[in-house]
Amino acid sequence: MGNTEIRIGILGCGVVGDALIALMNAQRDIIASRTGIDISINAIAVNDLDKERGDWVDASILTDKPEDVVASPEIDLIVELIGGTDPTRELVETAIKNGKPVVTANKELLSKEGPNLFTLADSNGVDLLFEAAVAGGVPLMRVLRESLIGEPLDRVIGIVNGTTNFILSQMAETGATYENALMEAQRLGFAESDPTADISGQDAASKAAIIAMVAFGAEISLNDVPYQGISEITSADIAFAKKSQRTVKLLAVVEYSNEAIEVKVSPAMLPNEHPLSSVRDSYNAVFVEGQAVDSLMLYGRGAGGNPTASAVLGDVIAASNNLISKTYRGIGELRQIELKDLEDQESAYYISVQVIDEPGVLANVASIFGENKISIRSMEQEGMGGEARLVFITHAANEGNLRETLSQLGQLSSVEKVGTTIRVIEP
Amino acid sequence: MGNTEIRIGILGCGVVGDALIALMNAQRDIIASRTGIDISINAIAVNDLDKERGDWVDASILTDKPEDVVASPEIDLIVELIGGTDPTRELVETAIKNGKPVVTANKELLSKEGPNLFTLADSNGVDLLFEAAVAGGVPLMRVLRESLIGEPLDRVIGIVNGTTNFILSQMAETGATYENALMEAQRLGFAESDPTADISGQDAASKAAIIAMVAFGAEISLNDVPYQGISEITSADIAFAKKSQRTVKLLAVVEYSNEAIEVKVSPAMLPNEHPLSSVRDSYNAVFVEGQAVDSLMLYGRGAGGNPTASAVLGDVIAASNNLISKTYRGIGELRQIELKDLEDQESAYYISVQVIDEPGVLANVASIFGENKISIRSMEQEGMGGEARLVFITHAANEGNLRETLSQLGQLSSVEKVGTTIRVIEP
Repeated sequence: MGNTEIRIGILGCGVVGDALIALMNAQRDIIASRTGIDISINAIAVNDLDKERGDWVDASILTDKPEDVVASPEIDLIVELIGGTDPTRELVETAIKNGKPVVTANKELLSKEGPNLFTLADSNGVDLLFEAAVAGGVPLMRVLRESLIGEPLDRVIGIVNGTTNFILSQMAETGATYENALMEAQRLGFAESDPTADISGQDAASKAAIIAMVAFGAEISLNDVPYQGISEITSADIAFAKKSQRTVKLLAVVEYSNEAIEVKVSPAMLPNEHPLSSVRDSYNAVFVEGQAVDSLMLYGRGAGGNPTASAVLGDVIAASNNLISKTYRGIGELRQIELKDLEDQESAYYISVQVIDEPGVLANVASIFGENKISIRSMEQEGMGGEARLVFITHAANEGNLRETLSQLGQLSSVEKVGTTIRVIEP
Repeated sequence: MGNTEIRIGILGCGVVGDALIALMNAQRDIIASRTGIDISINAIAVNDLDKERGDWVDASILTDKPEDVVASPEIDLIVELIGGTDPTRELVETAIKNGKPVVTANKELLSKEGPNLFTLADSNGVDLLFEAAVAGGVPLMRVLRESLIGEPLDRVIGIVNGTTNFILSQMAETGATYENALMEAQRLGFAESDPTADISGQDAASKAAIIAMVAFGAEISLNDVPYQGISEITSADIAFAKKSQRTVKLLAVVEYSNEAIEVKVSPAMLPNEHPLSSVRDSYNAVFVEGQAVDSLMLYGRGAGGNPTASAVLGDVIAASNNLISKTYRGIGELRQIELKDLEDQESAYYISVQVIDEPGVLANVASIFGENKISIRSMEQEGMGGEARLVFITHAANEGNLRETLSQLGQLSSVEKVGTTIRVIEP
């Protein structure tokens, strides 16, 4: 059969764009032979026309006017790899209005503007695909959008930030402090020099918002997602987890029950048997629970030029196929689903409290838990004297009650410091 | 928007069919609201019209004439859940010739007749989807067919048989013998009363053939796939693996290099850090390695009514979408790729040899390895006297040389028995 040429405009040529161009060049013939689609890169919009680039980047198609690319009748499909919301939102909107499918890796844009952009894509009958925006090379979006579109899903929990997973893995495996593990991550290029977006949990929160849209059809934005990062996690917390056969991970959690949805990011202790516990280094993995499919996990590289380019390429081919068939595949109408208030959520918790080691302190602490209706599953004292530390694992407790408890504990004279609070996920 | 009705005929109403009907009934409204597709079950072909069934099965649409269902102008899409090749091949062919997309869970049919059926589906412009045929609820087919269609894949290795994974997990975790673990699997319904197809590796070989078609576009059939099962694996082999930080798994391996392909099923020892090592119980998981995507793993339930039904439902919705858009998505033309002869393949091996514990025996055994150009990485003697056992781990060795070695070892007077041979996969 003859091949159909799809003329592609790429916006942005950083690490991912560069890897994508190399990958598309290398695979162009085999893709044509397997799919009948000839993916042809016809324009590349960059910031700096004079920057030196690899010889796989055709200098004659570089431009510094992305607005021309999205408007050009010579371009069929847009790949947006600029990131951020400005000028990206406008560029993506213009492309869609011009009937061009858009493939993007931009989690920030989608977590903030997703519902509007999906509606716009639907009303223009074009694809807006974004596999690379969540968990890089891990094909979560396609699996949620297609394989599981009819599945009664209960919960999606994931390790969707490689930087924090690298740091937590280092702490668990080498006994490193948080600070040293972060420095090691920076040295190896797994963390940026300003790592705030990653370690604060905000990056994972963007992905949680996107997962909530795709998995549950929720109309939601990044602002709706409470997040807690990993910077307060100490070596003592990690050591306790290890001793109790648990692993600490930063988890994005999206859970649906009783017609309401919980979306949040926080550190959590998982039992070592949980498949997410063995996800090490900077790998990402997402665990999906549904009533029919039972448990499913997808695991892979969450970042990096090549894995991200691989995800983008899958979307480019899917969108090209749809374009040729004059069809598209939206994510369906998003609906307003009640967001469960964090205060009303329930979870078991690990709570560490630094105390003055004197008679009666446990009774004082325990009575505060009791008064706030938090029941204790286990307690251990670690260390003695000035270093004494009480470590509690609670039964499922209301988050509002927990906060009240922590605040009251902080006021006890025998309590030196209320330490880390980490959600505990039961087997 | 108005919903488009897709009239579905289901062939076969055993465990999976029954689960599928219940799932489709429960999800029909939400699927309509999310996709605009109204999935309507209009015919169910069964063997026994009088069998008692759940009240979710509408008795008025039962028929014992599947040939009528595939020919009916009142049916848009066929779900084939009968299994086997007769009369399934003819039913599927007739459905396709009548322009009806087919969704099937039938690994046997596809591993034997895949290339012909895919060609037929292409020439009739209809979908032939089969997510449930490999690894049940694990969305491997969609990921390979869509997400990774442009990826330069190197290797796909998978635990694709739940029965054998359950048995191997039991042996490793409880120290059970092979025989006892098999009985336990039968007691819990993870193994059939005649477990031959599973434990021989044949079931996994069917899946390996299908993976080779989808991942590499290879024109191949079950007959091309050499397989070795798990029935010769002993508690001693498992104990050695454990001691050396390895895990024994039955692996389907499909590997592409130098324009040739290796496809095989055999037990293998994986390092404990390998993500497949922590796949326990009857779970399935498939590890995909590509040059851009790096490593990817998909994990989930490989069998069971509900997980399989979930996979079928995903395909039903995809095929319905395509039908409405008057399009379809084939797997592309299959091509004849050179199949690497097993004799020419290379791997490291674990080899256990039961010997008479007398001076000189190691020298005799070692010299046979040497003469056949197999170099030893490590050797250990376990037990003494009549129970003495030499355990070797080789460096990468040619499979032909290995067989010659084993045959010569068997003729040594100081060798009582050449025990299990297990491939070793390095980190």
